[in-house]
Amino acid sequence: MNHVASRVQRTSNSGLDKLFQTAKADQIIFSAGYPDANLFPQKALAQAAATTFTTSSQNLLQYKNSLGLASLREKLVARTADKDNIKTDATHVMLTQGAQQGIDLAARLILNENDGLIVEGPTYIGALAAFQAYEPTFYEVPIEADGMNVEILEKILKQHNIKMIYTVPDFQNPTGAVMSLAKRQRVLELANEYDVVILEDGTYRDLRYSGESLPTIKSFDTQGRVIYVSSFSKIIAPSLRLGWLTAEDHLFKDLLNLKSAADIESSNLTMSILNEYLEENELDDHIEILKNNYREKKNAMIQAMKAYMPRNAKFTDPQGGFFIWLTMPTGFDMDRFSDQQLINTNVRFTPSTNLYPSGSIKNGARINFTGESISNIKLGIQKLGEALSQAWQDQTVNV
Amino acid sequence: MNHVASRVQRTSNSGLDKLFQTAKADQIIFSAGYPDANLFPQKALAQAAATTFTTSSQNLLQYKNSLGLASLREKLVARTADKDNIKTDATHVMLTQGAQQGIDLAARLILNENDGLIVEGPTYIGALAAFQAYEPTFYEVPIEADGMNVEILEKILKQHNIKMIYTVPDFQNPTGAVMSLAKRQRVLELANEYDVVILEDGTYRDLRYSGESLPTIKSFDTQGRVIYVSSFSKIIAPSLRLGWLTAEDHLFKDLLNLKSAADIESSNLTMSILNEYLEENELDDHIEILKNNYREKKNAMIQAMKAYMPRNAKFTDPQGGFFIWLTMPTGFDMDRFSDQQLINTNVRFTPSTNLYPSGSIKNGARINFTGESISNIKLGIQKLGEALSQAWQDQTVNV
Repeated sequence: MNHVASRVQRTSNSGLDKLFQTAKADQIIFSAGYPDANLFPQKALAQAAATTFTTSSQNLLQYKNSLGLASLREKLVARTADKDNIKTDATHVMLTQGAQQGIDLAARLILNENDGLIVEGPTYIGALAAFQAYEPTFYEVPIEADGMNVEILEKILKQHNIKMIYTVPDFQNPTGAVMSLAKRQRVLELANEYDVVILEDGTYRDLRYSGESLPTIKSFDTQGRVIYVSSFSKIIAPSLRLGWLTAEDHLFKDLLNLKSAADIESSNLTMSILNEYLEENELDDHIEILKNNYREKKNAMIQAMKAYMPRNAKFTDPQGGFFIWLTMPTGFDMDRFSDQQLINTNVRFTPSTNLYPSGSIKNGARINFTGESISNIKLGIQKLGEALSQAWQDQTVNV
Repeated sequence: MNHVASRVQRTSNSGLDKLFQTAKADQIIFSAGYPDANLFPQKALAQAAATTFTTSSQNLLQYKNSLGLASLREKLVARTADKDNIKTDATHVMLTQGAQQGIDLAARLILNENDGLIVEGPTYIGALAAFQAYEPTFYEVPIEADGMNVEILEKILKQHNIKMIYTVPDFQNPTGAVMSLAKRQRVLELANEYDVVILEDGTYRDLRYSGESLPTIKSFDTQGRVIYVSSFSKIIAPSLRLGWLTAEDHLFKDLLNLKSAADIESSNLTMSILNEYLEENELDDHIEILKNNYREKKNAMIQAMKAYMPRNAKFTDPQGGFFIWLTMPTGFDMDRFSDQQLINTNVRFTPSTNLYPSGSIKNGARINFTGESISNIKLGIQKLGEALSQAWQDQTVNV
């Protein structure tokens, strides 16, 4: 018997599960988007949890509502006005299970089967997994150093019926690219012209290690067509499972209904702990610690890549975020290389295949630099670089 | 512009959001499925949280995996073997955001647009909201005192192409009905014969106030066609947002992929706190306290209903769970009554319309007896009973 829906075939090979597989001993993990566990504010969160439990009524543990804790939403309104130039109010902010659920809900809101969806190529693997459950027709717009290619974007919008564009303008997952100001404005202009919704993912936006911050696409949105999602996973801790989204009324109300149908609401307990943490601590001070640490790690990885990567490998040097994008010459199969080398090197990374809906680009890889220690970064990149050189020389993994 | 997917029209009128609206002062809430907040083990959970924070490594706050905390899954395996006669193992148990997400994932797994889905009439409002996002064709099987009418079930299975049956065999939401042993076996037999998946919702199963427990449908399942979902929301606290599901391999693997696409994983923090709570406390002792309290409340409500409900009102006297089902004669419109009387009585309940996918039955109501105090139960039922008598006499809300 085969009972499953057609969407399942598409989601079952997303590769997302592999990213969060429990690591074997001695493995070096560049594959997942892990923050550095040593930097989690565990003591401060423990204190916030203790305060929350002792100062709250028994209603702390009761059902609340699908929007989430009001005082936390108010803090988000103030913060997003300050950091992202987004003007909203607490009745248009919703807490979600990480940005991942925000992406899932936006897709659920907008996409019928076979609807046109534009994504960057490559893009965030988890977003593809979420989108695939709604069975859209994917269109890829190539990423350049300053964000997606807007000429190709326009061409696709002209030729096809598109409902939504998904973009990560800041420290794009997986390339680390930052979309230029001109392109941010152009993408919105095109969305207005072709009457398309933009799903803007700002998950990495707060983690800039050099250069100047640019305004969000949402900040230019005068027609209410941008759904903005973000997360506390990278700036505080993933296991809170708290992200948030904001959108204008005509989309937000339905997003809220879809949230309550999906899981009623997020945890009032974790929202209360986070809210208390934000009252007792200065989030920007914590982010500054993260930035200093991650900048150092990124530099260490770039230095190691310069030393150990084969000459025909290219890699990005991002201004922020979590990832470096590595490219070998066309013909090199990163999937096969990954499977082969893992046995010898114990270094895990994410091959590019699963980061394109078409699965067509095989010579790229996403390398995370935040999760491992600097010594592991050096060791892992050396091993990886040597294995890549060897594989290229042996021509064992070319297609 | 109207960008939203066709599913949104169906979910936007579920009525689910109304249930969890913040109560106004002095309102008596019989509408939502609130546990009694005074019985939440808040001190024990505070202690468990403190222990969790102090004894865990920094990995407490990191990403883990989509299954959820291993030691908690092992506890669930032991408990479900003992209480539900379900034999499973820790690699086939998954933590979810309440049972609600389990229902959503099962629907996502099985249902293509227009696929046949059988639900009990009336059924759980949140399940309907989750299902509607996948746009199935609904078939209603009427609920009787001993569970769904299996003759009508068979007739529907014979006549239509059905993919899934959703049932709450224990203390059905909203009628409180318990499915008889014979019917449990018959439902499974029919599912086997017609090759249909059963989604069994055991959310209220632990809360039996009289009579003997019956085996789950899942316990008879030899073909791996039952997905079993349950929750900690009613027996510990909703704001943990922790439920769980179990299914056989051929369904479970895809459910896991869908979970990771939906929100990556549940909160390792809340799972760890719950796990620690279960190590430091005897869950069955706590459930005993709940049962004694809820039995008393249920009896108080039944007594008040006998005293104050109009003679032509019928109501169930459930052996467990959270709800009493009230029926007025055909022609009485509970929606209109609810809107009218709320201004005068300040008593909220759930009219039947949203509990049938067809929306056709208007003379029923779901009344929760666990959330309010006994004095509010008496007061609220008196007000409701008097308002019902008046409305019936005035014939103001008849259709």
